[in-house]
Amino acid sequence: MKILILNGANLNLQGVRDRGVYGSESFEEYIPRLQQLYADDEIAYFQSNVEGELVDMLHKADGVYDGVVFNAGGYTHTSVVLRDAISAVSVPVVEVHISNIVAREPFRHTSLIGGVCCGSIIGFGLDSYRLAIEALKLHR
Amino acid sequence: MKILILNGANLNLQGVRDRGVYGSESFEEYIPRLQQLYADDEIAYFQSNVEGELVDMLHKADGVYDGVVFNAGGYTHTSVVLRDAISAVSVPVVEVHISNIVAREPFRHTSLIGGVCCGSIIGFGLDSYRLAIEALKLHR
Amino acid sequence: MKILILNGANLNLQGVRDRGVYGSESFEEYIPRLQQLYADDEIAYFQSNVEGELVDMLHKADGVYDGVVFNAGGYTHTSVVLRDAISAVSVPVVEVHISNIVAREPFRHTSLIGGVCCGSIIGFGLDSYRLAIEALKLHR
Amino acid sequence: MKILILNGANLNLQGVRDRGVYGSESFEEYIPRLQQLYADDEIAYFQSNVEGELVDMLHKADGVYDGVVFNAGGYTHTSVVLRDAISAVSVPVVEVHISNIVAREPFRHTSLIGGVCCGSIIGFGLDSYRLAIEALKLHR
Amino acid sequence: MKILILNGANLNLQGVRDRGVYGSESFEEYIPRLQQLYADDEIAYFQSNVEGELVDMLHKADGVYDGVVFNAGGYTHTSVVLRDAISAVSVPVVEVHISNIVAREPFRHTSLIGGVCCGSIIGFGLDSYRLAIEALKLHR
Amino acid sequence: MKILILNGANLNLQGVRDRGVYGSESFEEYIPRLQQLYADDEIAYFQSNVEGELVDMLHKADGVYDGVVFNAGGYTHTSVVLRDAISAVSVPVVEVHISNIVAREPFRHTSLIGGVCCGSIIGFGLDSYRLAIEALKLHR
Amino acid sequence: MKILILNGANLNLQGVRDRGVYGSESFEEYIPRLQQLYADDEIAYFQSNVEGELVDMLHKADGVYDGVVFNAGGYTHTSVVLRDAISAVSVPVVEVHISNIVAREPFRHTSLIGGVCCGSIIGFGLDSYRLAIEALKLHR
Amino acid sequence: MKILILNGANLNLQGVRDRGVYGSESFEEYIPRLQQLYADDEIAYFQSNVEGELVDMLHKADGVYDGVVFNAGGYTHTSVVLRDAISAVSVPVVEVHISNIVAREPFRHTSLIGGVCCGSIIGFGLDSYRLAIEALKLHR
Amino acid sequence: MKILILNGANLNLQGVRDRGVYGSESFEEYIPRLQQLYADDEIAYFQSNVEGELVDMLHKADGVYDGVVFNAGGYTHTSVVLRDAISAVSVPVVEVHISNIVAREPFRHTSLIGGVCCGSIIGFGLDSYRLAIEALKLHR
Amino acid sequence: MKILILNGANLNLQGVRDRGVYGSESFEEYIPRLQQLYADDEIAYFQSNVEGELVDMLHKADGVYDGVVFNAGGYTHTSVVLRDAISAVSVPVVEVHISNIVAREPFRHTSLIGGVCCGSIIGFGLDSYRLAIEALKLHR
Amino acid sequence: MKILILNGANLNLQGVRDRGVYGSESFEEYIPRLQQLYADDEIAYFQSNVEGELVDMLHKADGVYDGVVFNAGGYTHTSVVLRDAISAVSVPVVEVHISNIVAREPFRHTSLIGGVCCGSIIGFGLDSYRLAIEALKLHR
Amino acid sequence: MKILILNGANLNLQGVRDRGVYGSESFEEYIPRLQQLYADDEIAYFQSNVEGELVDMLHKADGVYDGVVFNAGGYTHTSVVLRDAISAVSVPVVEVHISNIVAREPFRHTSLIGGVCCGSIIGFGLDSYRLAIEALKLHR
Repeated sequence: MKILILNGANLNLQGVRDRGVYGSESFEEYIPRLQQLYADDEIAYFQSNVEGELVDMLHKADGVYDGVVFNAGGYTHTSVVLRDAISAVSVPVVEVHISNIVAREPFRHTSLIGGVCCGSIIGFGLDSYRLAIEALKLHR
Repeated sequence: MKILILNGANLNLQGVRDRGVYGSESFEEYIPRLQQLYADDEIAYFQSNVEGELVDMLHKADGVYDGVVFNAGGYTHTSVVLRDAISAVSVPVVEVHISNIVAREPFRHTSLIGGVCCGSIIGFGLDSYRLAIEALKLHR
Repeated sequence: MKILILNGANLNLQGVRDRGVYGSESFEEYIPRLQQLYADDEIAYFQSNVEGELVDMLHKADGVYDGVVFNAGGYTHTSVVLRDAISAVSVPVVEVHISNIVAREPFRHTSLIGGVCCGSIIGFGLDSYRLAIEALKLHR
Repeated sequence: MKILILNGANLNLQGVRDRGVYGSESFEEYIPRLQQLYADDEIAYFQSNVEGELVDMLHKADGVYDGVVFNAGGYTHTSVVLRDAISAVSVPVVEVHISNIVAREPFRHTSLIGGVCCGSIIGFGLDSYRLAIEALKLHR
Repeated sequence: MKILILNGANLNLQGVRDRGVYGSESFEEYIPRLQQLYADDEIAYFQSNVEGELVDMLHKADGVYDGVVFNAGGYTHTSVVLRDAISAVSVPVVEVHISNIVAREPFRHTSLIGGVCCGSIIGFGLDSYRLAIEALKLHR
Repeated sequence: MKILILNGANLNLQGVRDRGVYGSESFEEYIPRLQQLYADDEIAYFQSNVEGELVDMLHKADGVYDGVVFNAGGYTHTSVVLRDAISAVSVPVVEVHISNIVAREPFRHTSLIGGVCCGSIIGFGLDSYRLAIEALKLHR
Repeated sequence: MKILILNGANLNLQGVRDRGVYGSESFEEYIPRLQQLYADDEIAYFQSNVEGELVDMLHKADGVYDGVVFNAGGYTHTSVVLRDAISAVSVPVVEVHISNIVAREPFRHTSLIGGVCCGSIIGFGLDSYRLAIEALKLHR
Repeated sequence: MKILILNGANLNLQGVRDRGVYGSESFEEYIPRLQQLYADDEIAYFQSNVEGELVDMLHKADGVYDGVVFNAGGYTHTSVVLRDAISAVSVPVVEVHISNIVAREPFRHTSLIGGVCCGSIIGFGLDSYRLAIEALKLHR
Repeated sequence: MKILILNGANLNLQGVRDRGVYGSESFEEYIPRLQQLYADDEIAYFQSNVEGELVDMLHKADGVYDGVVFNAGGYTHTSVVLRDAISAVSVPVVEVHISNIVAREPFRHTSLIGGVCCGSIIGFGLDSYRLAIEALKLHR
Repeated sequence: MKILILNGANLNLQGVRDRGVYGSESFEEYIPRLQQLYADDEIAYFQSNVEGELVDMLHKADGVYDGVVFNAGGYTHTSVVLRDAISAVSVPVVEVHISNIVAREPFRHTSLIGGVCCGSIIGFGLDSYRLAIEALKLHR
Repeated sequence: MKILILNGANLNLQGVRDRGVYGSESFEEYIPRLQQLYADDEIAYFQSNVEGELVDMLHKADGVYDGVVFNAGGYTHTSVVLRDAISAVSVPVVEVHISNIVAREPFRHTSLIGGVCCGSIIGFGLDSYRLAIEALKLHR
Repeated sequence: MKILILNGANLNLQGVRDRGVYGSESFEEYIPRLQQLYADDEIAYFQSNVEGELVDMLHKADGVYDGVVFNAGGYTHTSVVLRDAISAVSVPVVEVHISNIVAREPFRHTSLIGGVCCGSIIGFGLDSYRLAIEALKLHR
């Protein structure tokens, strides 16, 4: 199975910023661990702080990957264009969040993209990504 | 690991009602399948349409189970008392939903209980329950 | 025709409480009068103050009755689970209210269940129930 | 009993427009059928697309009819002046709707006139009018 | 001075409807009394329940009258077209209300037309009209 | 092509009122100019300040015209009945506005009718009407 | 007749501040002019920028004056205590405003005190005070 | 004096859950202490997590007790049926809360039942119950 | 124990204004009765209609009194500065209200100061003050 | 005439995504067709999924093009910076939309940019672009 | 340069109250330090807890000072009269806040006075005052 | 001291666009003037119209600069990701605005980033930047 892990804004700081909320493992450490765990699958990784580059990547993922695990970061709550991009492609997209966004500030309670993903996994730290891969495999 | 699967209102009709949204497998069929899958674990099941009986069960689960997989059904969006019950116990609770509630009517977009659970798994059909068990195992 | 008259919270006090708003005839008096009026039909009666028991009864009514006349009382304005229960069953449900809820406090102006019933009859005192039976007969 | 059936905007198109929602019988067909059904009563009919003419007719109905069955159509949701007209007259007015307005767009969920009518009958197709006549007779 | 007294919906029932709120003198009695009081002036009177006819009359008043005393009745709270009509003409318009609208239902607290009138006189019974004439004279 | 240009409230004052916003050409001048421009087409014109007469005209236009160019004026923002009338007929209706309503007061930002028209043309002065005719021709 | 003219915050600057909105005559000039005009009456004047002193004055006016002409200035839109003070006394209070508050910022459209006054006179410049005295005389 | 202490959802965990907010004394300890303190009175105790059972108990209390001290727990903020039950009975009901609900999450700031109780005592820990008994005695 | 009873706007009219709501005993009568009842304590009294003087008094009370019983009157619903003053001092403050504010107009349902007091006692007439003193004694 | 057609997010998928809503012709096909149609004009095309690149392009268009036809895609509803960019340049900008955004989800009903464009053309499929060019030519 | 430092409610407790938020230096210490720092300027200081006295002082400052540094404290969020006072005077007023009000409770996020000041300086502790003086000097 | 001046969308047009609001000096002129003024400090400048590039720059600034002066332009009101980026870094960030955003359109009154900056300086033209540098120096 070919899976793209797609990370949005500020997730390049994972493991560094606000460790109480997000934990201390970076994606530089976590992605190889995931790739080892799913050695029979192909797991690609892309991160950008630019909303439009995430749109571009969702477009490119269509027909190339069997599933996308997508953490849009702060764009989750404001981005109509990411919602439109997910709607426009046929590759299944699973929304993930490291922290429990519903337990934080009110403006983080709304997800503009959740409604066009196949489902959402929220609040299990980096394990949210692994559960999303499991979800894509079950969903297949 | 001892896990309680706790189902709220109308979930006794799963497999019968609105199959386009919820699928056609009932919990009478699904729970044994789950128990077989997790043969080394102890998986209990309880369903009630009465909000207060769900509160009671959450209280009883404390100290007895290692985790609760909780689908509060329609109470998700209105129940302060279930939120309070989850806050009051120390057993970890994972919120699950069969359908993608964020893709449905606006009054289903708000979860009063999500913010006091360890996390939420939404929209993967009955697989949401299995992913929640995985989440509890990873979270351990 | 087999009809269930289903009454929600506080309707056991009908005829006693707030007679200016609700009138002075109790259901103990009214139901037999209705049964006499519709002697060729089978009219059953159930009342509960417990939301979940109303859900249970709606489930049980499915396939047993030809129609349900339902006054959810105060649950009308807050209950997603009763809405879901009505959606889940195929028996036609008519919403009734004794008083004109739109003429009372603002929180009584919203009905969560009206949109999933076949129709609503509001404000004709206990006659609302009789009109609902007529509606079920016409609707048949 | 002298009854006025008063229809507001676009109800002249009944039986022609949007038959899935409103059914295919026109008032040209339905009113005679009603008059036959209630042969001992006097049933008059008036329709206008002009809000102010409906106000005029409510004024004129006072002291002339024993009851008014009123479907204000789209004015239901916006008209303070119809509300005021109903309040100003002493003839009992029953609000009717052909479709289940609570199951439609949000701006149709609010009725400005319901609160000043004796009651409302919503969602039973053209039978709503017949039930309203029954309601006026019971209410008498 | 040539003054038009322009009355909107339901004001033809003044003196008859809801006397506790509006008093018992009709415009048939009041207007001649006003004309006598302001014998040197020319006081015309027009009432309609049709919003568009009030628009027409405001257009016609322009260049013909020196001032308009306008009670839009229930249209006060909903009519953009009356607001636009007042803006479009150059004759000064004074808004009047018989009852104290701010002391009544919340939907009567907003006036769409007040902001484009020269001023408003609210709550003095029929004397509001006389005060409005005085205002036009002072304002001249 | 047979086209009806339908104008709502206050548009009879075009060219006279508020020239900074609406320009100085009246429809008495503009319509003949349009008719000359589209000499092969049949262009009819109707204006009314009465909401219900606009409803009437939309009903009559059905099956008679190939398209309607509709400027509802101030009714745009409040009229459910015009929305219903447009939905009820099958003739294509194009919404037009002379001024840029989105750049004006907040209550002018909402159009109740736009969502049931084939499209909207906003803000190009009287040219909005010509563009709407072009749109009807392209849309054909 | 004994009348108190009671002015709230910033009205001591009348005639000096923002002359385009409020005009250029000060109360030092206007009050004597009023007193001359109503030579048979007793007209007192009090101004304070302190909300509580206005409350005190309303209390003191009770039983001493036959009417109060009250311009609460900016307190109009926020003061529950002035509303309570007016309700608590039996002397009739007429609300006045120099400018047309409904034509200004949205936070000036709400009057907390209007609903407990006998009426309101808004937007006639300093003439609003004179009209209020007339209103008190008619109201007597 | 016969007094019923009626506790709603999650109050069976008092003394165990969230001691920082609610304190560490359980009702098993507190009620006997209260009974000793008010040895001349009859103090009964009932707790349920089921909303409808609280409704039942309020109905039963009528005519049996001289007063009810009621802590509805999380139902305080959502329950129309408890509000209706309190309105329906004539026994005086005092609302109590252990914690200061106004200092907590916004959804705890609204009490649906406060407006139909004789009064409310909020935020004094378990002493709120004792003060409520004092209130009932003074109120007698 | 040294206790300050601090009364806000319009409470100087207690016993005089709106006796149906507030009762007929004045503070001139009630305070001596309280002082007699709590003869071992020192009970001081201060009332002002000026918000800022209430702020001043709260500042002065700090370190001088063992507790403050505070009825802010109409300032309860609007005053950030009283909230800040209570937060700034360390003397415990109990909020009291004579009437049941939650049963009155919507703008009286919000208390800006309740969340920073130790607790609130609402709706027991003048007995609210006595219960507040009891609360301070228990709270000690 | 030199015209820039500027397309925002996801419009690179036009003709591919959601054909029921957007039609099946791509911009790769449509732009040459437009250029042929307007052979005497110079029509340039730019598309980007990056909000900031659209801002850049609007800046660059100033002084270079005679008009911009701008479809901001999903940024339409959220972008203050595009609004600011349009305000900052003097080249006339016409807003276009392929689908009728007012007939879709509520978050698509608001356009942040419409109010600073010369006008808007909404809902005519790709013909919206052609009508916008016509609008620019008429507007010249 | 003559500068007035004007402090509103509760700022007399600066250095004493809530030191974590506001710091521990009082204005008794800070003002002399400022005066020394700006030895060539004349720096006056006034503080009041009474809203109306702040209005008075703003009036008096006009024509006397070259600038006002104004911290309205809790009145910032509710005071229309302070807004009106600042608008009414021509002396430039700079709004300052010691704490970062946007990082605190939602009711502190709105400033009614900011929009009529020349600018605002928020969140730099007592240094906000010094920066405001610099701003006045630059602004000169 | 090493300071980064970071400018967001449309600020490259400073000095050119809307000079009445923003003044006529460009950053090409202003930055060298600032560098001269603070010759002992190191002042860097970066501007981008792309939200994600501003995020990138805030990340890079961490550990490199002693402070950031940040004008996010139109992103101020909508950007969760910029808020997150500021929270994620430890370098102090001061928010600046050239114009008084609180005096402009309502959607400019909310700052998503102000609450995570050390403070904000609003409305002093380009001097806002200089005051922000002073703030960073004092804050050090």
